[in-house]
Amino acid sequence: MIELDLIGIGTGHPDHLTLQAIAAMRAADLALIPLKGADKDDLAGLRRDICARHLDDGRRIVEFQMPQRDAADPDYRRGVNLWHDAIAASWQAAIREHLPGLSGRVALLVWGDPSLYDSTLRIADRLELPVIRRVIPGITAIQALCAAHAIPLNRVGAPIQITTGRRLRDHGWPEGADTVVVMLDGDCSFRHLPPDGLQIWWGGYVGMAQELLDHGPLSLAGPRIVDARAAARAAHGWIMDIYLLRRADQTV
Amino acid sequence: MIELDLIGIGTGHPDHLTLQAIAAMRAADLALIPLKGADKDDLAGLRRDICARHLDDGRRIVEFQMPQRDAADPDYRRGVNLWHDAIAASWQAAIREHLPGLSGRVALLVWGDPSLYDSTLRIADRLELPVIRRVIPGITAIQALCAAHAIPLNRVGAPIQITTGRRLRDHGWPEGADTVVVMLDGDCSFRHLPPDGLQIWWGGYVGMAQELLDHGPLSLAGPRIVDARAAARAAHGWIMDIYLLRRADQTV
Repeated sequence: MIELDLIGIGTGHPDHLTLQAIAAMRAADLALIPLKGADKDDLAGLRRDICARHLDDGRRIVEFQMPQRDAADPDYRRGVNLWHDAIAASWQAAIREHLPGLSGRVALLVWGDPSLYDSTLRIADRLELPVIRRVIPGITAIQALCAAHAIPLNRVGAPIQITTGRRLRDHGWPEGADTVVVMLDGDCSFRHLPPDGLQIWWGGYVGMAQELLDHGPLSLAGPRIVDARAAARAAHGWIMDIYLLRRADQTV
Repeated sequence: MIELDLIGIGTGHPDHLTLQAIAAMRAADLALIPLKGADKDDLAGLRRDICARHLDDGRRIVEFQMPQRDAADPDYRRGVNLWHDAIAASWQAAIREHLPGLSGRVALLVWGDPSLYDSTLRIADRLELPVIRRVIPGITAIQALCAAHAIPLNRVGAPIQITTGRRLRDHGWPEGADTVVVMLDGDCSFRHLPPDGLQIWWGGYVGMAQELLDHGPLSLAGPRIVDARAAARAAHGWIMDIYLLRRADQTV
């Protein structure tokens, strides 16, 4: 039996690791490290640093090329499905090669937390191997954003909506929402909202050494963030960012 | 200057602690540990264990009685405000007593994460002391619930609503929601929803040794959870629980 540990490792701060995550890494017979495009060199480096610090036996670490999603596929769900199939096939090949007895513990390190806008669990479901899955929770970008700004996520007793840039752009401000957290937004979708009465707290590379933060009324901070995001992306070759929007018409 | 570290310590699993949280605890000149009612003995014990493991100098740990919220106040917001004032006053008294020079690092350990349905940040804002606040993110009950069930929080590209038991009871299923996470629910408010087409994933004491889990169609699992929750509460004298509801009419 393969024991597959999906390990949340936080958002890039090496000290986001929990004791549980470290114990799972140390117990692994094999750690699978995906390599992404050149624009993700910083992330691969961070992941290698974490492995070097917490896995004492280098032979157990196997890097593999991540398949690319066909972003040109007009059917978004189909594109994602095919991509997940391809990733599952590479995991499977790596496991068969390095654990030919199909027995042992395999660690997969996941940025943030395996439950939040992450596909690792869905990919694990596609494995045609005898697998027991275990999830080790990690610090999410939402927690890291709120911590960096030292703000509460919610107003007292009020709800929170977590959504994607795509949905914010296509559907506007969610009906009845008080606080909205936007993830997976490659396009500053807050630009499509009427900014009046909204506050934004933004973070790029949250938790990492190159962390960028800004906040203020959306009408003023929004254009600053668009510029800062473009400049940072040009400088680093990539960016991951997240933001929280809140109606300004009530006290926090 | 007082440096006040609000440290998320996760949901009761001692290994939810991050390296960042441990470093902040070790650097503290003073750790403030609230004592709650007798029904919270288990939690106080867990917190003491965490301190014993990660704070090597017992003299720096100060326990103080937590003021009680006046649950009879018909104005919920006013009750909460007065309660936060009282808590801030006890922090302030403890800091003045144990750090009379008003200089040094103070650690406050927060269950879960300081940003999520937690009042520590709002209480810190009330301190009439020269304070720099720092937030160390922690594993939330949401992450711990999803990890325990090994499920994703969201469907692919879909939004998530986080809300309270009170709101679910008073307002019903949130408009347009796909996945709803319910916290602060002392009353199994899912009982007020028409159960058809809803799935529930429930957890009590998530992350702790006495963790309880159940899931299934709300129509079947709901009554089981009501019974299990009542029995566990009677046995332990207290319970903390959380659940995720999802419409069953789409694939995860």
